Amino acid sequence: MPDASLMEAAVHEYVAAFAAGSPERVAAIFAPDAAVEDPIGTPPHVGHDAILAFYTASMQTGARLELQGPVRIAGDYAAFAFSVHLHWDGSDKRVDVIDTFKFNEAGKVIEMNAYFGPTNFHGFG
Amino acid sequence: MPDASLMEAAVHEYVAAFAAGSPERVAAIFAPDAAVEDPIGTPPHVGHDAILAFYTASMQTGARLELQGPVRIAGDYAAFAFSVHLHWDGSDKRVDVIDTFKFNEAGKVIEMNAYFGPTNFHGFG
Repeated sequence: MPDASLMEAAVHEYVAAFAAGSPERVAAIFAPDAAVEDPIGTPPHVGHDAILAFYTASMQTGARLELQGPVRIAGDYAAFAFSVHLHWDGSDKRVDVIDTFKFNEAGKVIEMNAYFGPTNFHGFG
Repeated sequence: MPDASLMEAAVHEYVAAFAAGSPERVAAIFAPDAAVEDPIGTPPHVGHDAILAFYTASMQTGARLELQGPVRIAGDYAAFAFSVHLHWDGSDKRVDVIDTFKFNEAGKVIEMNAYFGPTNFHGFG
């Protein structure tokens, strides 16, 4: 399995890439054949092009990610809690999310699931 | 899918059952054929008897769970961050964990994964 510090660094790069508004940097942490299910239970975005398109669209809201507590590392997995902050339609909004990343041997994310739903939206009026 | 408030209540019952030291109450939130993978990547505890035995052993440490931030609810899933507090071998210890619960139509947990590893242990010397 990949080193824990490498997996933790990937999570911090994910947050930093959002702060920089760079969907290319987000896409670079994923394996070419990765699947992103965001939120879990919806049709996944599979492969580099679909993942890049998904994050390009996500970042058009100006979303900023704020980690909540330490990254959990278990075997090939990282899990982390965070808030997404948006300024949209004239007001500040927040969505509370937990993501899980599964890593491959090369240290790239091959599977990502995001956990959030209607009860986690705040300020959407 | 089960109601979000029911899924959130199951998470709070899980925490309360630990506080009460009742493995029976924890086991009662699971479906009879549930699988508990704690931590993820290890052999699962499958079915009521195995799950009851697992939580009976877990509680012998006097573990107390403290939720960190809101429960995330996504479709049939709940995810939540927490700390496990233990007093063991003469000192206070803490493990930071994220759990995911998948619910069945009856509102019982059918799949549980726990995310934590060596980097999440504190005070173990």
